[in-house]
Amino acid sequence: MQYSQLSALIRQKQSMLCVGLDSDLHHIPAHLLRSPDPIFEFNKQIIDATYPYAVAYKPNLAFYEALGARGWDSLARTMEYMPKDVFRIADAKRGDIGNTAALYARTFFETLHFDAVTLSPYMGKDSITPFLEYPDKWVIVLARTSNAGGADFQELKLQDGRHLYEAVIQKSSQWSSHERMMYVVGATQSEAIRHIRQLIPKHFLLVPGVGAQGGDLRAVLQYGSNEHGGLLINSSRGIIYASNGQDFAQVASKVAQALQEEIKQIMQW
Amino acid sequence: MQYSQLSALIRQKQSMLCVGLDSDLHHIPAHLLRSPDPIFEFNKQIIDATYPYAVAYKPNLAFYEALGARGWDSLARTMEYMPKDVFRIADAKRGDIGNTAALYARTFFETLHFDAVTLSPYMGKDSITPFLEYPDKWVIVLARTSNAGGADFQELKLQDGRHLYEAVIQKSSQWSSHERMMYVVGATQSEAIRHIRQLIPKHFLLVPGVGAQGGDLRAVLQYGSNEHGGLLINSSRGIIYASNGQDFAQVASKVAQALQEEIKQIMQW
Repeated sequence: MQYSQLSALIRQKQSMLCVGLDSDLHHIPAHLLRSPDPIFEFNKQIIDATYPYAVAYKPNLAFYEALGARGWDSLARTMEYMPKDVFRIADAKRGDIGNTAALYARTFFETLHFDAVTLSPYMGKDSITPFLEYPDKWVIVLARTSNAGGADFQELKLQDGRHLYEAVIQKSSQWSSHERMMYVVGATQSEAIRHIRQLIPKHFLLVPGVGAQGGDLRAVLQYGSNEHGGLLINSSRGIIYASNGQDFAQVASKVAQALQEEIKQIMQW
Repeated sequence: MQYSQLSALIRQKQSMLCVGLDSDLHHIPAHLLRSPDPIFEFNKQIIDATYPYAVAYKPNLAFYEALGARGWDSLARTMEYMPKDVFRIADAKRGDIGNTAALYARTFFETLHFDAVTLSPYMGKDSITPFLEYPDKWVIVLARTSNAGGADFQELKLQDGRHLYEAVIQKSSQWSSHERMMYVVGATQSEAIRHIRQLIPKHFLLVPGVGAQGGDLRAVLQYGSNEHGGLLINSSRGIIYASNGQDFAQVASKVAQALQEEIKQIMQW
């Protein structure tokens, strides 16, 4: 998906919502466990229910890998089912070099038809650029994450006064354009979002941590949005596990709609 | 596996060799492609051929994931087959938080019976510690990697004069003991190895990049070894793809043996 298409999708749906498919056999409604592929069945119903309000979906690969070969089947089925007019993110947080990175790129982009993959920057340029060889595919680099440990290294002060996460953004953003790269910035880091927006006015930011992790949606939108949208706001558990009864899809739909409406209202669309 | 067991294994086999199972359908001998599970068949023969000379094996997960569900089956079969008296490393380079990290830990340690998993430090403490809840299991944190891009961020100078990789080692080594943590340091970084050995005298270092990437074995052993061994020297392609004919296993055996003997000689065992 191209930058302009993503931007148009956001305008059309009046939404920046990304639904995180952290789908776990221990958390999905019990009645689904009788179906042949419970994780796929869950994802399918969640996608159907939230599609009017979401511009992106983000399966977290750990949840699928935890089930071994069966989990990969569920993921492949989910990706086949997923509509083509949403932005599809493989939340993999990979970081490996050369031929290994190239293999991951092939897996996520060719085999599974994702539009983007999340990557850790620690191994540097040659762990990122192999993913940029696929036209219209994106990399999403971890910058300032929302977890408690995010500060351990990302906030370290460099000799030139910058934080590590700023150096990561400034260096890596030279490896491609804003049309192929995004950054992960946690919703709890609204000051960092404000600062990052000054560093990179055009790039999209993928912002997890609204909802379950307590990030402030208004601050995120105020500091992080740009004229092209500029944000994908991720919510995972807050939507997909809003109910674990027979009504889980309906409730997920309502929660997604409420979030979309809140985004729309704050953005004054 | 416990620290003392790993140390004893190294003494017993007079080897620090780790064989990297970067097993790829495009590189294994053509005659194996007729077997029901070519990757497993390749791994099985490589393990049989190198077992006398190796103390550790390290499947690189990217190669298995690239094959989807089928690749996970090959990996699971390989791990079932692998002898229990070697140190088994999942080269996953994961880095994710809380419940996601816990899921990965379950997958690698419980389901697949690995002894250790490689992790990226960028997300900080809560991306590492969930893996430390399993007794006798290890985490291996990326410190100074051997790839060209390794310098992009790992060598950044901090305000206090340290490089980022030093800060990573000094901070993360407080999260557990040398009996549960190792660090990845590329064989091309012999100065870093010398320096790291001063920072953490007791920890094991996992050193890739001997062979194909041109690292100097003598310098690595001289600077990196300690009284408990202290090193796992990884070679992947240099061993497993030494021949791609019918004789691949025999040739792999010879190359592994030569490397073991070189280690033994330099260590003056």
